[in-house]
Amino acid sequence: MSTIYNEIRGRLYGIGLGPGDPELLTLKAKEILNKVDTIFVPISSGAKSSSARFIVEAVLDKPKEIVELTFPMTRDKDHLLSYWESAAKEIAKEIGKGKEVAFVTIGDPFIYSTYIYLLKTLKKCFPYIKSQTIPGISSINAASAKVEVPLVEGDEKLAILPVNDNLEGLREALEGFDTVILMKIGTKLSKVTKLLEELNLLKNSVLVSQVGCSKEKIIKDLHSLKDDQLGYFSIIIVRKEALGK
Amino acid sequence: MSTIYNEIRGRLYGIGLGPGDPELLTLKAKEILNKVDTIFVPISSGAKSSSARFIVEAVLDKPKEIVELTFPMTRDKDHLLSYWESAAKEIAKEIGKGKEVAFVTIGDPFIYSTYIYLLKTLKKCFPYIKSQTIPGISSINAASAKVEVPLVEGDEKLAILPVNDNLEGLREALEGFDTVILMKIGTKLSKVTKLLEELNLLKNSVLVSQVGCSKEKIIKDLHSLKDDQLGYFSIIIVRKEALGK
Repeated sequence: MSTIYNEIRGRLYGIGLGPGDPELLTLKAKEILNKVDTIFVPISSGAKSSSARFIVEAVLDKPKEIVELTFPMTRDKDHLLSYWESAAKEIAKEIGKGKEVAFVTIGDPFIYSTYIYLLKTLKKCFPYIKSQTIPGISSINAASAKVEVPLVEGDEKLAILPVNDNLEGLREALEGFDTVILMKIGTKLSKVTKLLEELNLLKNSVLVSQVGCSKEKIIKDLHSLKDDQLGYFSIIIVRKEALGK
Repeated sequence: MSTIYNEIRGRLYGIGLGPGDPELLTLKAKEILNKVDTIFVPISSGAKSSSARFIVEAVLDKPKEIVELTFPMTRDKDHLLSYWESAAKEIAKEIGKGKEVAFVTIGDPFIYSTYIYLLKTLKKCFPYIKSQTIPGISSINAASAKVEVPLVEGDEKLAILPVNDNLEGLREALEGFDTVILMKIGTKLSKVTKLLEELNLLKNSVLVSQVGCSKEKIIKDLHSLKDDQLGYFSIIIVRKEALGK
């Protein structure tokens, strides 16, 4: 198999699309999307449309084949594994024909992305496939720029972590780091708000939802939000230095 | 002063240029650089050339005014303050004339960047100046993409911190986080290598120097490097999950 894959032109480009605004794509991402033969776009099962597809179509000079790959919205790894394997097979099949293909992902490909699992599955099942990953603007950098709150300066430390049921890890990070980014908040907002209040950090917190999209929201008063008003793509920036809000 | 600055067209764009490869600029950054009246470019005192200037010139459709602002390479904040104030005055003067200006920065504007201090000084001394910050690909995302090492997946936590004389903070981060990014390594490489060895994490570490530039280097064996062989723009990715190197 090694000979076949080394001799062919085929290659996978893993491309970060940035947070949602097509203008936040890199020049390199645009160039590669325009030159590859096929573009694979992830879509959540049950979603009406793919925001990744919207971004891709916005920067294509002329229409080309876009293949949607469905992934369920679940944290159940075993369940997801079959989807990644099937996606990896479909992508490997195209590359085996000598095609250059792109798999795109919102934000940066290596920050909480489906691409990580897909690439691992692909490297495991088809180890000789060539790949190149193009970084993208993550929602973290985009949110920080939007609200003009620095992430780190001088000797400061930054922690990025998802909110889960173990709030102890979160508390430790909030105590030990200058800036903390909370990801995947979902239905845990009220628990987080309570902890931030206890640590006297509510005034140092700002929530940015769907940054770079038309539905973008900036919430400076976390008490004004209910748990169920939050989408998946929300992050909270907590910065020890006064925000001046 | 508020009336003057509110009525005029003048505005500052703080623009992240990405790690060094002009192709890693965003479409938005390129568009703004081409439309503004003046571009301010930071240059380190003593440097022969500005890599920021090189990137800017690579994406300009036609030549335009580029003004170099010199900043010394020092951690002495008091010494730097006079440089930031003088830069802020020069920029404010242009904006006061109704001009749109850009201040560019390598990487992302809000990750360990001169722009953070400049923006703070500007907002303090000239509070009515309008600003907009455009995020950029940070060296962290670029390095992760280059070596195809994920930063965070699933429920994982990421810490980003500079190496300083207090190695305790570094040790805690290495023990408590799934991925740790070490910045500003400079002359402390041998101390870091020793700590990583002690924690049995050398096999989980990769150093990326000057990512996205022509001098880019990927070092998988940290023992092969001497302290004085490292430039300022080197980062180490330490990832608990096996790197497969």
